[in-house]
Amino acid sequence: MEKQEWLLGIDLGGTTVKLAFVNKEGTIVEKWEIPTNLVDNGIHIVSEIASSVKEKMGKWPKAALVAAGMGAPGPVDFETGSIYVAVNIGWRNYPLKSRLERELGIPVVVDNDANMASYGEFWKGTGEGTNDLVCITLGTGVGGGIIANQELVHGVSGAGGELGHITVIPEGGASCNCGKTGCIETIASATGIVRLTLEEINKKPESLIANRYRDQGLITSKDLFECVEEHDEASAAVLDKVAKYLGLTAAHVGNCLNPDKIVFGGGVSRAGEVLLSPVRAYFQQYAFPRVAESTSLECASLGNDAGVIGAAGLAYKQYGN
Amino acid sequence: MEKQEWLLGIDLGGTTVKLAFVNKEGTIVEKWEIPTNLVDNGIHIVSEIASSVKEKMGKWPKAALVAAGMGAPGPVDFETGSIYVAVNIGWRNYPLKSRLERELGIPVVVDNDANMASYGEFWKGTGEGTNDLVCITLGTGVGGGIIANQELVHGVSGAGGELGHITVIPEGGASCNCGKTGCIETIASATGIVRLTLEEINKKPESLIANRYRDQGLITSKDLFECVEEHDEASAAVLDKVAKYLGLTAAHVGNCLNPDKIVFGGGVSRAGEVLLSPVRAYFQQYAFPRVAESTSLECASLGNDAGVIGAAGLAYKQYGN
Repeated sequence: MEKQEWLLGIDLGGTTVKLAFVNKEGTIVEKWEIPTNLVDNGIHIVSEIASSVKEKMGKWPKAALVAAGMGAPGPVDFETGSIYVAVNIGWRNYPLKSRLERELGIPVVVDNDANMASYGEFWKGTGEGTNDLVCITLGTGVGGGIIANQELVHGVSGAGGELGHITVIPEGGASCNCGKTGCIETIASATGIVRLTLEEINKKPESLIANRYRDQGLITSKDLFECVEEHDEASAAVLDKVAKYLGLTAAHVGNCLNPDKIVFGGGVSRAGEVLLSPVRAYFQQYAFPRVAESTSLECASLGNDAGVIGAAGLAYKQYGN
Repeated sequence: MEKQEWLLGIDLGGTTVKLAFVNKEGTIVEKWEIPTNLVDNGIHIVSEIASSVKEKMGKWPKAALVAAGMGAPGPVDFETGSIYVAVNIGWRNYPLKSRLERELGIPVVVDNDANMASYGEFWKGTGEGTNDLVCITLGTGVGGGIIANQELVHGVSGAGGELGHITVIPEGGASCNCGKTGCIETIASATGIVRLTLEEINKKPESLIANRYRDQGLITSKDLFECVEEHDEASAAVLDKVAKYLGLTAAHVGNCLNPDKIVFGGGVSRAGEVLLSPVRAYFQQYAFPRVAESTSLECASLGNDAGVIGAAGLAYKQYGN
């Protein structure tokens, strides 16, 4: 009997490494996590991944791994598969592809984690069946990935799809981790939303969201969306600002690429239509009419699995004949 | 003796049709123009092109046309080669590819004129040798074209690369022909520059540019750049505004795609470094640092030939052996 052929998807984060065996139809067969070993600037990560994979594969004598894909948090030289820099891991010019290929004995494709998640949505998520897709990930920061003509766009130095650093407030915007000011990340990330919410709480100390802040001692973007649904005006004002600049960002990307879909993922996007509906309204206002009519804004569908599914999918595309 | 194999490049404009025989190295062998016949909603254009081409080919018994490319002013369904709408010509859902193939007897590829010009710069102009290229054409309007992973990006309804309608003034911007307000086209097109210059002349009636306006009875973007070089403060203020928003636009596109180059073409770009130098400064301010370091801003090099060369180049890519 022939062996079943699977792909290995790996999604490297600052605290855990997500792993999954994925079949050629894009279904996860098994998934698990191991802690990210940051000791010695991450030098043990690759061998620990390989040991864990070999152990898990021992349970599946009728299956074989064809290839692996791995997403890493930082810009990647896609041609060579080396990581330019991954600050949270400790890697700099790290030859991830060759190290992992040696340890696993199968071909490996390496890409930026946001690109891998975008490729996941393209292969098996909200973007399935599209030709051109843009993903905007609203998490602690704002990331992104672009697929044009069914190919990921990496750019000349691996910064293609860095949508979080689109400047939406050209003058007097808040400082961003990237060194600039006024990036959409300072507004539409979980961190940015909390910052804007705290500013509004100062201005409206009698609002529902201000009361909630005093009760809980802290506030999250989830609180904001909940208070919007309870018709709190202060919260609505924050959401309006977030939606406006996110709609503007989507319009910029839309006017560049006119993709089939712009898909929002990450923790903040779990708010769903409460967020998406006003974002769409601003998108309609700022997008070229032909783009406004044809590019749709939707929520991602793969959640935290997008990274491993995308990594497996890209491995399949590159090596899975 | 074997026949020389050439490509035919066609660039359709509202007043003239530019035509060229181009060899496989991308060199123009012969170029000429015919008037655009707008009678009966442009129904005669294709047959007049074919007659003209056949007549010219009569002079070259040792050459044969392999394929043709044609750029048209409007969004194109790239798959079918039909023109969704070309307002200035009178076409709507016009099957240009099939009509031209029937008349010429060779395979034809059809695309938007701005895309063809961008492809020209990619094949044989400033963008030669790049993997990812963005062209921004500053003419009567502002157009654009995007090449990612060496392929033109058309988008789901042919509006990919419509960079002129990126919204740079989200509130209170000038009205644009597209129906929106605040598009970069309202600022950095020849028309937009004249509008801003006239506003500044009203505010600074003693300036050099105001005097020139009174002397000549009209003013062009060329006048503006000349007065900047003569250190006229009013003109410098206009240029600063144009450069700021053009730099912001370039940064938006750069943050999306991190292309090797962003190339400026069209009549306004003939100003050269007077324009490009301040645009670069604003680009540095608004682009993600990694993009600011790696994406360069340059002037186009093919001038008015970009359209026919790009059309020939795309025909070669699609059908040239």
